Amino acid sequence: MRIEILCTGDEVLTGKITNTNFSYISQKLEDVGLTVVWGTTVGDDRARLLEAFRLAAGRADAVIVNGGLGPTVDDLSQEIAAAAAGVELVLNEAWLAQMESFFARRSRIMPPNNRKQAMLPEGAEVLDNPVGTACGFAVDIGTARFFFTPGVPRELRRMLEDQVIPRILARAGSPATIRLKRFHSYGLGESHVDSLLEGIEALAPDGSVKLGFRAHYPQLETKLTVRGTDPDDVERKLAPVIAEVRRRLGNFILAEDDRTLEGVVLDELLAQNASLAVVETFTAGQIAARIGHLPGAERTFRRGLVLRDLTDLGAAVGLEDAPALGPLSQETAEAVARATRTTAGATHALVVLIALDDGDDRIDFGGTIHLAIATETQTTYRRARILGGREWVRLGAVELGLDCLRRFLQALPVAERIDFEKV
Amino acid sequence: MRIEILCTGDEVLTGKITNTNFSYISQKLEDVGLTVVWGTTVGDDRARLLEAFRLAAGRADAVIVNGGLGPTVDDLSQEIAAAAAGVELVLNEAWLAQMESFFARRSRIMPPNNRKQAMLPEGAEVLDNPVGTACGFAVDIGTARFFFTPGVPRELRRMLEDQVIPRILARAGSPATIRLKRFHSYGLGESHVDSLLEGIEALAPDGSVKLGFRAHYPQLETKLTVRGTDPDDVERKLAPVIAEVRRRLGNFILAEDDRTLEGVVLDELLAQNASLAVVETFTAGQIAARIGHLPGAERTFRRGLVLRDLTDLGAAVGLEDAPALGPLSQETAEAVARATRTTAGATHALVVLIALDDGDDRIDFGGTIHLAIATETQTTYRRARILGGREWVRLGAVELGLDCLRRFLQALPVAERIDFEKV
Repeated sequence: MRIEILCTGDEVLTGKITNTNFSYISQKLEDVGLTVVWGTTVGDDRARLLEAFRLAAGRADAVIVNGGLGPTVDDLSQEIAAAAAGVELVLNEAWLAQMESFFARRSRIMPPNNRKQAMLPEGAEVLDNPVGTACGFAVDIGTARFFFTPGVPRELRRMLEDQVIPRILARAGSPATIRLKRFHSYGLGESHVDSLLEGIEALAPDGSVKLGFRAHYPQLETKLTVRGTDPDDVERKLAPVIAEVRRRLGNFILAEDDRTLEGVVLDELLAQNASLAVVETFTAGQIAARIGHLPGAERTFRRGLVLRDLTDLGAAVGLEDAPALGPLSQETAEAVARATRTTAGATHALVVLIALDDGDDRIDFGGTIHLAIATETQTTYRRARILGGREWVRLGAVELGLDCLRRFLQALPVAERIDFEKV
Repeated sequence: MRIEILCTGDEVLTGKITNTNFSYISQKLEDVGLTVVWGTTVGDDRARLLEAFRLAAGRADAVIVNGGLGPTVDDLSQEIAAAAAGVELVLNEAWLAQMESFFARRSRIMPPNNRKQAMLPEGAEVLDNPVGTACGFAVDIGTARFFFTPGVPRELRRMLEDQVIPRILARAGSPATIRLKRFHSYGLGESHVDSLLEGIEALAPDGSVKLGFRAHYPQLETKLTVRGTDPDDVERKLAPVIAEVRRRLGNFILAEDDRTLEGVVLDELLAQNASLAVVETFTAGQIAARIGHLPGAERTFRRGLVLRDLTDLGAAVGLEDAPALGPLSQETAEAVARATRTTAGATHALVVLIALDDGDDRIDFGGTIHLAIATETQTTYRRARILGGREWVRLGAVELGLDCLRRFLQALPVAERIDFEKV
């Protein structure tokens, strides 16, 4: 199955917009075992669009076209699709009615130029767009099936998943059920996880499980794509592999599927009827900002404190022997965590203090992190040293802080060594 | 001048990496008045690379190829370039020596497979890469000039600006000097700024100034691209246009060229020998996080405080009549700002309190922002209401907070109405 993606629009071609739709489409296809072999980007230009459609039609079995379905004069996809397919544009009465009701539900009159969005190549199959007025459609050009999708990311995503991918899978003769299982981890590099998971695909003996990764520092996403004849078949094949991934990556798995590290931390806090106070230095509010805005945080996020000048630290958290605070150390971090918890009236305090290296930013610029978590009965400490430049240290410290809190709340060891720290 | 971009690599084609290089190259070319007409993406596949090179050679005058210059077996750009140009690969002794010295400076031995990076198509022109081992080169394929660049963004950027763009401009017969002037604003939408700047290009009578925009909510970038025969000519043409843009956009210009809003705020604070305390609610640390990590912030950023439960607000900032704090209002915001300034021992306090609408996230979900800035002698208040969903409100409130502080520090009106707020 040769699949191509064809992105249209001057804003994408000129770089005014970064084309995230391309990687989104490509990744979603990969996730169900389909591979894109060619990508094309052209602007809102009749001759070039036509040439691009003809080239793709000559090379591919399926082509996903993105953009150009809007109501304005530079939206040319329907017109050029009809020309390339050698058919006329005809009004689709059903889509016109759907658009009119779309506007009516919002108490607005449909502008006349939106009518253009219901003009489709004769014989085209409509691809529903429940969240917008751009009508998706599929049509044959040469021997390839072309799927036309909207440029608005929210509309594209819905149409791709609900309408386009099932049709391409049906044409590819793929097994009816495909599932993507995802694990998010922090602290292990991609090659390390790859070697930890060696041989894991063989646990599903018919080659139906495929392992993949997506790294976005500081987190790594480990993906299992599974094909089967039906949901039961998929679950049966997947279960032993999932169990083995969980066993081998262990405490490093911070969340699965659509969950996030900050979401897991928030849910643990809420489930434990706990409340949180955070003290940060060089991360400068970024730890608080990952949790504090989430729905539900207003019930558990008690207080965040950012300090850059650490001579002020003791007084700011209400430490009585503030003048005695020396250079950063385990004692300092633990004392600050205990004082913060009391002052803020929280059940848990997370303190992430960072001693930055001197001098300008550089590739071996580093920071030493003193991290403490305090509850009424217990104080836990973790030290880590991260190198790689100011930004790298900052991002790493934010993730380390949140992940140590996750480990603490889940009663896992807080001080397990990670690949990113120097000893 | 027909210019194409050809991106190579399985990681880009499969969406494992979002292709930001494409928009970067395209935007940089636009900035000097050059337009990309076609983009192609193919994987590490000999047959498809060769086909893509031949198609581009038949359509374009100049082609920028990105990726595939590394030392591994799936890096195929030199090999396919030679095949498409009908020449042999030959060892470039000068580049080999440069690579060996690159490794020697880092006290490392060059691995043998890096030698591959010095194999170039016969007759190719070397494009220097001072920050990596991938050798850029230019070669004719058909009637098009192909420029081969590395996939590593840092290496690409340097090579594109220093080596590739000057060569393409020379081939295009463009005037020797081109300058890009940028203005960053907050609070005016793109169409509003477009209408405010109507006719501005005509201030340079020979059509040498081109106006453009790049919107990234909440900020808007307004760009002037100017061509001239030499730097003096460019400055002469640009000066009246710059003056007029500054006059028309006025207080809304928050920074120019490479400066940022947070950088301007930090520099103003440092220049005024001031210190800052920040109190945030729903922005949850994001305002502090924009400033607090910057080099120099340790000398002026005194304290950041994040609270989600506002019943705790008075006590947290040391307000003596804390229990009397009612619902959010001008009085509350101003009292909190004054107390924060005193408690933190800062010259300036910025307080951004937000009353969120009830219910779930939705497109008309909004927040009412109560913003106050206090100094020893003065307290300033600004109220704003922003709609558009939780994320939109949060991003808008961060920007509004920083921009109001910028205006205050620059002695500009703090309460000037913006396009994004509802009255």
